[in-house]
Amino acid sequence: MTLHPKLESDTHFIAELTLSQLRLMNTQSFPWLILVPKVENAVELIDLNAEQQQLLLKEINDISHLLKNNFKPDKINIGTLGNIVKQLHIHVVGRYETDPAWPGPVWGYSDQPYAEGDLNAMIEKIRYGLSSTF
Amino acid sequence: MTLHPKLESDTHFIAELTLSQLRLMNTQSFPWLILVPKVENAVELIDLNAEQQQLLLKEINDISHLLKNNFKPDKINIGTLGNIVKQLHIHVVGRYETDPAWPGPVWGYSDQPYAEGDLNAMIEKIRYGLSSTF
Repeated sequence: MTLHPKLESDTHFIAELTLSQLRLMNTQSFPWLILVPKVENAVELIDLNAEQQQLLLKEINDISHLLKNNFKPDKINIGTLGNIVKQLHIHVVGRYETDPAWPGPVWGYSDQPYAEGDLNAMIEKIRYGLSSTF
Repeated sequence: MTLHPKLESDTHFIAELTLSQLRLMNTQSFPWLILVPKVENAVELIDLNAEQQQLLLKEINDISHLLKNNFKPDKINIGTLGNIVKQLHIHVVGRYETDPAWPGPVWGYSDQPYAEGDLNAMIEKIRYGLSSTF
């Protein structure tokens, strides 16, 4: 899969799932995961075939459970916009009533990046969550 | 199904689908549809069982095709947030590179409502799209 340069620069690789590459957005205020289906030229959800959509639904469910179990968010926000980066990607974000963007959307909110040690700890925590959940 | 008062006041009834009630957000700049699954107490996507999720995925696909065929958007935005209204509801929105919120999200953007005649025409156009597509 060719990854859009903005996804490459804004996010960190976590793992290869069956359909998607799982990546972490570098925002310190919320656990913000992104699924990037490994399907060339997919832009809209309806560009995926039925089998790919089933895999994606499973991965959205899995990541939702991972967030719920490991980060105890008050709410999970899921979205696919693609207004800026056309390559199909799905956001799955843990939200807190105390986070600085609450109750607004994370999209369009400029958050601070993680401190370097915190970023590495976050990546390890998510990888541990993946290995223990699935 | 009990509809949250804010969904009741901000949106207009379009149709009953198999899983969801389809409603239209009263915003003049984008065709903004909302699927409200008729499942009491559902808040997160993962609160739906597997059968309900399959129905929802089909309805998201159907509404995406309806928007694409009848409104020719440049992009479709799909999201479920629920930070303000907890009752599970899924936004499926046609976006245009010329719309006033582009390329930002529609959530958090204060759009003008439709003029009364335009709202009725919009509702009829979507109902016609439903009847001719499915």
